[in-house]
Amino acid sequence: MSPVVGYSLDQLMELAGLAVAQAIYKTYPPESHPNVLFLVGPGNNGGDGLVACRHLKLLGYNPSYYYPKQNRKIPLFESLQTQLALFKIPEVKTSINDDGFKEVVLKADILVDSIFGFSFSPPIREPFGSIIDMLIRNEFDKPIVSVDIPSGWNVDEGPVHDISIQPSMLVSLTAPKPCSLRFTGIHYLGGRFISAEISKKYDITAPEYSGIDQVCRIN
Amino acid sequence: MSPVVGYSLDQLMELAGLAVAQAIYKTYPPESHPNVLFLVGPGNNGGDGLVACRHLKLLGYNPSYYYPKQNRKIPLFESLQTQLALFKIPEVKTSINDDGFKEVVLKADILVDSIFGFSFSPPIREPFGSIIDMLIRNEFDKPIVSVDIPSGWNVDEGPVHDISIQPSMLVSLTAPKPCSLRFTGIHYLGGRFISAEISKKYDITAPEYSGIDQVCRIN
Repeated sequence: MSPVVGYSLDQLMELAGLAVAQAIYKTYPPESHPNVLFLVGPGNNGGDGLVACRHLKLLGYNPSYYYPKQNRKIPLFESLQTQLALFKIPEVKTSINDDGFKEVVLKADILVDSIFGFSFSPPIREPFGSIIDMLIRNEFDKPIVSVDIPSGWNVDEGPVHDISIQPSMLVSLTAPKPCSLRFTGIHYLGGRFISAEISKKYDITAPEYSGIDQVCRIN
Repeated sequence: MSPVVGYSLDQLMELAGLAVAQAIYKTYPPESHPNVLFLVGPGNNGGDGLVACRHLKLLGYNPSYYYPKQNRKIPLFESLQTQLALFKIPEVKTSINDDGFKEVVLKADILVDSIFGFSFSPPIREPFGSIIDMLIRNEFDKPIVSVDIPSGWNVDEGPVHDISIQPSMLVSLTAPKPCSLRFTGIHYLGGRFISAEISKKYDITAPEYSGIDQVCRIN
C-alpha cells in the first residue's frame, strides 16, 4: 500500500485490508475456501494482511496468521493484533522451520502473501526467505493471493529472480504497479481512496470502480 | 457511532462513514440525488458524516458540508477536513442565520443529519437548535438521512420532544439503538466491525449482513 496524502495509516490500512478481503471473497468464497492462512511481513504490506484477516473473519472465514517478525515501531500494528485476538483469530506459533508447519499449510485453502510490498529491496532475511521459498515451491498447490505486489518482485521489473512467487491472484492497492503487467493471473484493484484530481496529478490510470464496490477486477 | 473495544477512532469512523455512504447510495443513487448537504456536529456523529461525505464523492456525488463548530480536540477531525479539501469538497460558509442558507438547502437533493449521536443530552446549543428546527420544518421536503440516531432524539426513548426530526432514512451504526423502534422509515444497519462473540457478550441482536455488504437493510 502506498502512502496517500492526507490520510492516516489507520484509515488507509483499514480500506486496503477491506478491499483485499472483498477480492478474496469474490474469487474464493468461504463455502469452498474457509481456511485462510496469512503470511505476514513486518511492514505495511503485513499490516494490510492483518486487517484483511479480521475482515475475512467477519465475512465468514476461519482465518489464521503467521507473523514471525512483529512490528514494534508503529503502535497500530499492536492494535491490529489486539483486534485479531478479540476476534479469536489464531496466531500460528509453529515456526516455518518446524516440521509441523507443513500441517499448518496443508489445512489452509488459501495462502495470503502479505510479506513484502512495493518498497521491498533485497536481501531477503530469514525467516522470510524460507516463507517465500515455500510459496515458490507451493508443494500442495494452494491458491496464493498476493497483496499489492508478489513478495520479492521488483516494483517495476517484476520477477527479477529466476525463481519467483507466481500467485494465482493479485490485489493491487491504490493503483496497479508497473510489475503487474508481468502478472497473468486473476487481478483486482482495491483501495478506493484517491480522487479523480489526484489520479490525474500523478498520472494514475486505473479501471473505474462501479457502484459501491471497493474492488474492481482488472483481468 | 459507539466506541468499540480494540479499534482506533480512525478505523471505526472510516468503516462507519463508508457504511453511511453505501446506505445512501442504495436508497438515493447519484443519478437522481447528486447533491448532498451534510450538516455536521462537533462530535463523533459529525466525524462519521465527514467520512461519509468523502466516500460519497468517490461514489460519484457532489457533496458539500456545513460544519459550524469544528472539533479542535481530536486531531483526526482536522485530518478529515484536510481530506475533504484534497477532494475539493466545498465547505458551506453561509451561516444558518443568513438568508442565503435557504439557497444552499434548496440546491441539495438530500440532507444528512450528522449533528448529534447517541450520547447527546439537552440543552441544544446554537447554531444546532436552528439547524434542527430547519430539519423539523423541512420546508422544501428534502429526504433527510440521520446517522446512528436522529439528532435530538433520546437514545432509549426516541422523539422525546413534541416536535422532533423525522428522517426519511436512518443508518444505525454497530447496532440499532432502542429509539430506532420508534422509527418507521427506511432503516439500514452499518458498521460491520464486531465479532459474533462480542455481539453475544453485549447481547446485541442485529440482522445478519450478507456477502461482502457493509450495510444491511432492516426495514
